[in-house]
Amino acid sequence: MSAPLEALATPCALVDRARLEANCARFRARAEALGVALRPHLKTAKSVDVARLAGGRGIAVSTLEEARHFAAHGIRDQLYAVGVTPDKLDAVAAIDADVAVLTDDVEVARAIGARATPAWIEIDAGQGRGGLAPDDPRVVACARAIGGALRGVLTHAGHSYACRTIEDVARVAEEERAAAVGAAERVRAAGLACPGVSVGSTPTLAHARSLEGVTEVRAGVYVFFDRFQHAIGSCARDELALSVLASVVSRREDALWIDAGTLALSSERAMDDFGGGYGEVTRPDGAPFAQDLHVDALNQVHGRVVARAGALPALPVGARVRVWPSHACITAAMYDHYEVIEGGRAVARWPRLRG
Amino acid sequence: MSAPLEALATPCALVDRARLEANCARFRARAEALGVALRPHLKTAKSVDVARLAGGRGIAVSTLEEARHFAAHGIRDQLYAVGVTPDKLDAVAAIDADVAVLTDDVEVARAIGARATPAWIEIDAGQGRGGLAPDDPRVVACARAIGGALRGVLTHAGHSYACRTIEDVARVAEEERAAAVGAAERVRAAGLACPGVSVGSTPTLAHARSLEGVTEVRAGVYVFFDRFQHAIGSCARDELALSVLASVVSRREDALWIDAGTLALSSERAMDDFGGGYGEVTRPDGAPFAQDLHVDALNQVHGRVVARAGALPALPVGARVRVWPSHACITAAMYDHYEVIEGGRAVARWPRLRG
Repeated sequence: MSAPLEALATPCALVDRARLEANCARFRARAEALGVALRPHLKTAKSVDVARLAGGRGIAVSTLEEARHFAAHGIRDQLYAVGVTPDKLDAVAAIDADVAVLTDDVEVARAIGARATPAWIEIDAGQGRGGLAPDDPRVVACARAIGGALRGVLTHAGHSYACRTIEDVARVAEEERAAAVGAAERVRAAGLACPGVSVGSTPTLAHARSLEGVTEVRAGVYVFFDRFQHAIGSCARDELALSVLASVVSRREDALWIDAGTLALSSERAMDDFGGGYGEVTRPDGAPFAQDLHVDALNQVHGRVVARAGALPALPVGARVRVWPSHACITAAMYDHYEVIEGGRAVARWPRLRG
Repeated sequence: MSAPLEALATPCALVDRARLEANCARFRARAEALGVALRPHLKTAKSVDVARLAGGRGIAVSTLEEARHFAAHGIRDQLYAVGVTPDKLDAVAAIDADVAVLTDDVEVARAIGARATPAWIEIDAGQGRGGLAPDDPRVVACARAIGGALRGVLTHAGHSYACRTIEDVARVAEEERAAAVGAAERVRAAGLACPGVSVGSTPTLAHARSLEGVTEVRAGVYVFFDRFQHAIGSCARDELALSVLASVVSRREDALWIDAGTLALSSERAMDDFGGGYGEVTRPDGAPFAQDLHVDALNQVHGRVVARAGALPALPVGARVRVWPSHACITAAMYDHYEVIEGGRAVARWPRLRG
């Protein structure tokens, strides 16, 4: 199959295959240069095709639906990287794959240990979400409770998203490394095995200077990148691999309305401190409009496009435009397939898991 | 089937059947008292089961996927209430139902007329999205171009969402009525038939004082309502029919983290001017916590729960809570089914269309 973009029903999610492959290759090379394994986090793409292109050692997932889906497609080494609840352990055990779980809770660790479920201990490297401080005595208590099935300790430097300079990201990456390695050393000092040290986020893998003591790194959004990752310095503009094809449905003096609203773009406002907007709007081939168009308001199935410079271009109802989202993870989640494009044509359709 | 809420996998979308039925009955009665037909907008619920409970005369839909889905379930009278693009007319014609389209563009109206597709003309009653001003000469030009298949004129008073008093909503409802009826009169004064006058939004149907000259009213979110609709006076707190069941996955001094993040709640910030928050958090039975809990931050699969009053309750990892969303249309869109509850137990599972 090969079709011009004009033949696609809008709204739809476009994936630029050449950029996707280049992004995957760049981050594989980054991990290799830092001497660690790469474990792609499939919560962004939720696609077996993307998982195959990404390569790496195993995957991370964010839901049991993802774990089941990738298991059904033969991906065995999985890390369910959200704090597990005891009632989910039966479902984890029923998945035909090697699914390791995550916890920061001693009671839950006991339930995990009783079943010998492979598990990681979550360490907080400064994000303030899940995880124990590296020197919290409960780290060793969890390790003891989990017992022989302990895979290691894990951090996620989600606060790297708040950084606004590459220097700051590199500093957070070092804090993350130090927190994870420090926690592993405490477990080992207690006489327990702690084989794995897992860290990661797209910004910190992009800019970490050393990952000494780390065994693997997780990153997700790098496969597509997005305007936010571009704004904070994780990628170049021409590495963005995900966009939304939309049609003009109404023209006014002051705005164009397109058929891509909240359910096509998501209402993520990750770009608030970069001038806002729900997406940059270009021509279907990716070339910008001289008027610098962006989506500044959303309803469920309508997006409002305004110009930063001059009057709106004279686009008729039915004209196609391309929207470059702020937060690819959530925009992608609005679709059940990707239209894969190459050389300006749609060449494949990849299914995408929802859930 | 009947199961306690504790047996449901989290996160999941709960629909309280008794409240849903009462909401449907209340709005049917409201439309009847105002002397107009009710056309439920199924973009909120995207559920055949909800469509059956809602009753009314025909439905409105927001995507062609919805139109096909409801057609496949025998719902014939449909209004595709988003400005149609010419390339979508083939797809509309292929649907096995009576699907009327919407336009505010004379060129598109000609394409519609050439096919004799049933169509409505969109009038802007002050929202500033799609639609022509009631006195714009293009209203009559569109009517002429559509010809004998013209169904009528249509407004959507989306700006009623910006109202903060019931008095203001009633004023917008009257503006909407006057705009739609005025546009219909202009079409008729030009010697053309304009049988239908369609208006609507949940707030304006809740508070309109007269719909004289209107033939039908559309509303969508009233089947579930939400915290935003409660805040602006469309409903009572105990009419909220949609909520999300979630589990605590991590406990900290200052916050609980639950397994309901952006992909379970959506990142809609409709509540910004009511003190913010992505959802109110109660016990599984709907009883509030004395500490007045709400979700104040979201990641993809994590939500942060904080207390407005006092220290956090001592909930263990795995404890269930119920989250009451700000914007039901978008929260519901995150799910492919509803868990229907009655008397505190899950009694049915209703499929839900995505797309």
